[in-house]
Amino acid sequence: MREERATTRRQLLKGGGAALVGLAAGARPTAAQGLRSTPEGLARELMAYGRRSRFVGTSRITLDNKVNMQMHGDPNGFDALTPLGEQTGIITPAPLHFISSHGDPPPDIDPARHRLMIHGLVERPLVFTLDELKRLPSVSRIHYIECLANRPRPGAEHTLETSHGMVGCSEWTGVPLSLLLAEAGVQAGARWVVGESLGRTQQARSFPLGKALLGDTLVAYGQNSEPIQPHNGYPLRLVIPGFEGKFQLKWLRGIKVTDQPYVTYWEHGSFTRRERTPLGSYWEQGPKSVITYPAGGQRLPGRGHHTIVGFAWSGNGAVRRVEVSTDGGRTWADAELEGPALPMAMTRFRHPWTWAGGEAVLQSRCTDERGDVQPTAAEFGDFWGEYAAPHGNQIQPWKITDVGQVLNAL
Amino acid sequence: MREERATTRRQLLKGGGAALVGLAAGARPTAAQGLRSTPEGLARELMAYGRRSRFVGTSRITLDNKVNMQMHGDPNGFDALTPLGEQTGIITPAPLHFISSHGDPPPDIDPARHRLMIHGLVERPLVFTLDELKRLPSVSRIHYIECLANRPRPGAEHTLETSHGMVGCSEWTGVPLSLLLAEAGVQAGARWVVGESLGRTQQARSFPLGKALLGDTLVAYGQNSEPIQPHNGYPLRLVIPGFEGKFQLKWLRGIKVTDQPYVTYWEHGSFTRRERTPLGSYWEQGPKSVITYPAGGQRLPGRGHHTIVGFAWSGNGAVRRVEVSTDGGRTWADAELEGPALPMAMTRFRHPWTWAGGEAVLQSRCTDERGDVQPTAAEFGDFWGEYAAPHGNQIQPWKITDVGQVLNAL
Repeated sequence: MREERATTRRQLLKGGGAALVGLAAGARPTAAQGLRSTPEGLARELMAYGRRSRFVGTSRITLDNKVNMQMHGDPNGFDALTPLGEQTGIITPAPLHFISSHGDPPPDIDPARHRLMIHGLVERPLVFTLDELKRLPSVSRIHYIECLANRPRPGAEHTLETSHGMVGCSEWTGVPLSLLLAEAGVQAGARWVVGESLGRTQQARSFPLGKALLGDTLVAYGQNSEPIQPHNGYPLRLVIPGFEGKFQLKWLRGIKVTDQPYVTYWEHGSFTRRERTPLGSYWEQGPKSVITYPAGGQRLPGRGHHTIVGFAWSGNGAVRRVEVSTDGGRTWADAELEGPALPMAMTRFRHPWTWAGGEAVLQSRCTDERGDVQPTAAEFGDFWGEYAAPHGNQIQPWKITDVGQVLNAL
Repeated sequence: MREERATTRRQLLKGGGAALVGLAAGARPTAAQGLRSTPEGLARELMAYGRRSRFVGTSRITLDNKVNMQMHGDPNGFDALTPLGEQTGIITPAPLHFISSHGDPPPDIDPARHRLMIHGLVERPLVFTLDELKRLPSVSRIHYIECLANRPRPGAEHTLETSHGMVGCSEWTGVPLSLLLAEAGVQAGARWVVGESLGRTQQARSFPLGKALLGDTLVAYGQNSEPIQPHNGYPLRLVIPGFEGKFQLKWLRGIKVTDQPYVTYWEHGSFTRRERTPLGSYWEQGPKSVITYPAGGQRLPGRGHHTIVGFAWSGNGAVRRVEVSTDGGRTWADAELEGPALPMAMTRFRHPWTWAGGEAVLQSRCTDERGDVQPTAAEFGDFWGEYAAPHGNQIQPWKITDVGQVLNAL
């Protein structure tokens, strides 16, 4: 966008900045890479960039992506699930943030050569380098991203992670898409935006221009204050708070402004055949919550006091209330919400509970700032009928067996 | 605290939970460690626990800890500075969170064998395993931690990082210390708390019981939703929001309730000789801010529009206002604060600025919810006189040279 050769702030830190540090007496700059594997080398490496204790091995749970295999014949797809039962706060660690892949290994993008093009129905098509984008006014906001495949499912084999592990919440940093569109100048008659990805499967998705102009949609380069990791879109991804994850494209290379939704490969045919809107797609996600302890796949260590813990979120805005039932839905009590309850962000709740032994069914119910209430599985089924719902936000019941095992009760 | 053998939730995920996942058709659990270094092995490893792009090498800047060498004769001390100029949001990535060490390599603590003892002037001394602590009601809160050595310093060689890199902000998860003390029962006459660390240098620090009972002091096991990394206290550290970092002990093994402050090795003699309170120590940190772009050690890529960005924080509570001056302090304008502005947490601010070329001096000034205002270096010096101040929150001026280099102007 600008003519002059831009130098990244990191280059400065590594070059001029590091040289300045070197001037300080006693300075001993170290590099994160290229150290010999001596004990001292390892110690220096860990000082430069930390690592987990050797006693910590929490990992994403990887599964074959069967939808991808069955519908597209591509054997390379996979899902990697957030270990939600291990997540202690609202921030999902970037190395553990879920991945849903339709056969895309992360492209190995050189940031110096990457470009973002704003084109289509605009007055001035623009091409940005990463350095140029980073010079524009940026915002940092905490938002969840959730895959539409994330939902309670029948079957005792389903754990917290296999039903709810395709959601994560990060502090995303980037440039509001509205600012880029204002620079480019949106033409009269423009109604839609098509995001374009550099991934091998050439993902592209249409979403309404109105959402892009709201100011909350970001062209993001930072996740939890680091560059986004390759599996989640390095160096750029779209963050469209509250919308289905499939629109929040990774490896973003283009934003095309159009007068109508494009029906790209990923927006037609088998992938969306069971969705019943005229466009074949939904965007927004209603109120949702899940108990993460005690939850499916876990086991209570004993009778007595336990703290029920979980997360709630909504595509409509902030979470206002979470209720918990420990008697199969007969009675409900307000859980304690832990601040900050941010719009379109995971919110932590907790509720004290005493397990006297015997069977019990635990569930949580979210109400958001719009007043929408999370439905039961029965209400959800009545509404959607034979169609597969685009967003599965039905209440998740967990059954405690008399020996303390926690099972999916759907 | 409880008799029964507790099983961690991670053990469940690895054992019973993983077995359940294995039952799901197509499930292919992977481990984060122990994979052969084949391309497929590496791909699976990265799916299980992500890594940065090979083009990203941001690291902590490590320096010898001269205070430690001069005052204690220990050559092993070091500081590792947060690369604050690269931090895009309020969350400091755990691998990049600053470390200040007085010669402690992180102890290699087996979580199954670690204990926390609550003792001293209590009715019921208690010993907790980690599993027991994790069963107690927990909270997750976003707070900064800052070393008292973090402060503007005279000298053009000082960069953003060498003056302000000893601060970080994380989402900490743990059990309120007030809850543990209520369980133990504080005796009449108790006034102080001494935190005790397992580190090689046996750090121990006294702080007022009143702070421990406020409810915001945490015995923390989680940082940004992962177990705290070894350099920052794995498996347990004290988080005392708004207090000097030196009280927020890593590798926490004991909490002793006392009737008076202990004068431990780290609380007397050379380390605190220049502090002028009767106790020889301060706790609280006043309002502070720093511009992180453009900042010392960086270089402006060219004339024209720039967005001044920075962070503000205060030990008194939330940040209410940040003003920016671009003319050496003659005039000030309100910067835009980015929510959430949380108590005792880093808060992001930004301000548009056009550099027409030529010299300029940029600075920021924070006002917190108590109404306290960040002082200039002159005001700060007048107040503290010949004494070294315990908390250096004077305003940091950055000078832009006529070629766009950014230098410390103190």
